[in-house]
Amino acid sequence: MRRQTFLTGTLFGVTGRAIEPPTVPPSMLHPGANVTPYGAPSHEEADVVRRPSGLPSPAMTPLQRQLGIITPSALHFVRTHAGVPDVHERRFRLAVRGLVRRSLDFTMDDLRRFPQISRTHFIECSGNTAPGWNALGTTVQFSHGLASCSVWTGLRLRDVLDEAGTPEDGTWLVVEGLDGAAYQRSIPMSKVRDDALLVYGQNGEALRPEQGYPLRLVLPGFEGSANVKWVHRLEVRRAPAYARDETARYAIERPDGKRVVFDLAMPVKSVIVDPSPGRRLERGTNELRGLAWSGAGSIAHVEVTVDDGTTWVPATLDSVSPRCFTRFTLPLRWSGAPLRLASRATDDTGQTQPTAQQFVAARGAGARYHVNRIQTWDVAATGDITAGTI
Amino acid sequence: MRRQTFLTGTLFGVTGRAIEPPTVPPSMLHPGANVTPYGAPSHEEADVVRRPSGLPSPAMTPLQRQLGIITPSALHFVRTHAGVPDVHERRFRLAVRGLVRRSLDFTMDDLRRFPQISRTHFIECSGNTAPGWNALGTTVQFSHGLASCSVWTGLRLRDVLDEAGTPEDGTWLVVEGLDGAAYQRSIPMSKVRDDALLVYGQNGEALRPEQGYPLRLVLPGFEGSANVKWVHRLEVRRAPAYARDETARYAIERPDGKRVVFDLAMPVKSVIVDPSPGRRLERGTNELRGLAWSGAGSIAHVEVTVDDGTTWVPATLDSVSPRCFTRFTLPLRWSGAPLRLASRATDDTGQTQPTAQQFVAARGAGARYHVNRIQTWDVAATGDITAGTI
Repeated sequence: MRRQTFLTGTLFGVTGRAIEPPTVPPSMLHPGANVTPYGAPSHEEADVVRRPSGLPSPAMTPLQRQLGIITPSALHFVRTHAGVPDVHERRFRLAVRGLVRRSLDFTMDDLRRFPQISRTHFIECSGNTAPGWNALGTTVQFSHGLASCSVWTGLRLRDVLDEAGTPEDGTWLVVEGLDGAAYQRSIPMSKVRDDALLVYGQNGEALRPEQGYPLRLVLPGFEGSANVKWVHRLEVRRAPAYARDETARYAIERPDGKRVVFDLAMPVKSVIVDPSPGRRLERGTNELRGLAWSGAGSIAHVEVTVDDGTTWVPATLDSVSPRCFTRFTLPLRWSGAPLRLASRATDDTGQTQPTAQQFVAARGAGARYHVNRIQTWDVAATGDITAGTI
Repeated sequence: MRRQTFLTGTLFGVTGRAIEPPTVPPSMLHPGANVTPYGAPSHEEADVVRRPSGLPSPAMTPLQRQLGIITPSALHFVRTHAGVPDVHERRFRLAVRGLVRRSLDFTMDDLRRFPQISRTHFIECSGNTAPGWNALGTTVQFSHGLASCSVWTGLRLRDVLDEAGTPEDGTWLVVEGLDGAAYQRSIPMSKVRDDALLVYGQNGEALRPEQGYPLRLVLPGFEGSANVKWVHRLEVRRAPAYARDETARYAIERPDGKRVVFDLAMPVKSVIVDPSPGRRLERGTNELRGLAWSGAGSIAHVEVTVDDGTTWVPATLDSVSPRCFTRFTLPLRWSGAPLRLASRATDDTGQTQPTAQQFVAARGAGARYHVNRIQTWDVAATGDITAGTI
């Protein structure tokens, strides 16, 4: 890179011409800014933020801008039932009560002495992709942005219970949050013993306040609302609590009007994030990219159609891991003809995403929980993209 | 959780006693805070920040507080040569020049159309753990905090060069940054073709400005300074540039006073982060935790000693991956006797960490680059920890 300036006829009266105009970018002409103790994104990325839709707070993750499978903690979707409590880590205690041999209280320092494990799992709100969000169809953020994926670090929930000692008939664990809602959920002890985590870390640092600082439950693959945040009390019981948020809310709709309680695993799901509404498809070589996940296990395959379901092509999978976002890609050379795009994921238990029609037949037109119908995008000849399924 | 308040002898003159004093935490008594569009850590975590030591800016990662192998982008170590430039993503162009069939210029949108890949790799400053940092020995942040690990997302560097077409004798790639230093480094084409990445994403979102926004080089395992940030120019050549920062700086010391240029892979290394200076070891059951990495490959095993090297015990490894942080753990039951702790990592090429004495014999007493000697910690009977090797 030439940095000198060419002068034109000023010193000896020799008329010259700048043969290589100085094109030094402004950032190379002076020292740059200082480093901050805790970094932040470029001001050029100010539009990559959580946004509100049907929920009253900036809740939804901009999945269309996510790079890779990890959602930055600052952009992880948020749903609260009484706002974000301000919990003091040093005064915090976790109480273990109920059907236990001995009641125990743990400080955070106590909990950090248990074997520490890190696991990468998605969390998805039970109501993600529900019909009725205000801005549904405008971007992936509003149709699928109540799902995020993080590396969670903490301890096995069963390790804490084993310290307290639990009897055979303690088949439910009632977990309570430290928020203004005194939020409660009942978790089957089978899940607790299988893979439930008490986490204090997310993506390398302490949990963010809105994710449950200093301690939350992570139930891999279970609906987000069961992953209780700000957990301060565990109570072993013989029966569930039948709390408001497991009966009046978050119970799964059936077409006969009845509702199923404690059906907690999220179904298999996928979405194409690039191209997607709000972006433009360019002619020529592109890479189609999407995310797939299942609460029941690992993604086995994802198929993509560009002709409204006439043919389906297997996509390439990256980073396959149980109950975790999996990225899929497919080369896409576009000539400018209108397309109807969709992806269809299948997990290793054999579950496949239903079409919108199949979903309504199975769950009813009003179903708002565990919505996993195939999402279609319509690409116009201009390259503009709109949602074909809402 | 009982939330009512028990009154004591005020209404009917009946003298009572609160049998279960109300212990409702304050956070449960009112709704909490609103969610922000872009989240931030709890104010209780305000001490988890990058800090300056021998470098003029808040550069060093608080590894002693890192949870898992991923360093949050906000805490990734930083070394700049002329501060952090303010680069405009939409005006940005990457120029490919030199020995190429055709010179090319790419916008960021162009670059995002190449096949996108995500890889998890550490980056370590060539001078990490060099003697002479002001605060060396006080915490792991100052002794080992010029190393961090991220999920990097972008494209293969070779894909861009293949678009331009490179001849057989184009054996070096000179890469230039858009900063005030016009920072340049020469990379052997063998590394470029092997696993070099041009990345625009870190940990799920766009690169942070201090990490090279909008585009940086990631050379897995190579010293940090070769991973040029704010990359705007690639030039294929027959010889290296012999730039200031590959001859006067960042050349590897030998005991005979000569220096080796273009020895770029970082050696195998490890450090125990818990317990470590600034923390206190508690009696009873603990989990010893550390990080290990190698620029040459994957970690094969890590051994730990608690008796100053008399016996070495194999640690349990987690998340083994090439040129990536690997976590190691070992149960540690402590009775209160003073200990001298150390870890020793070996990679899958057979490289092992030297003792401090072996390191000085091989590299000289003044060696400041690629320092990978075994780090010892002394645990006093009080549980206080100090650095045994500096």
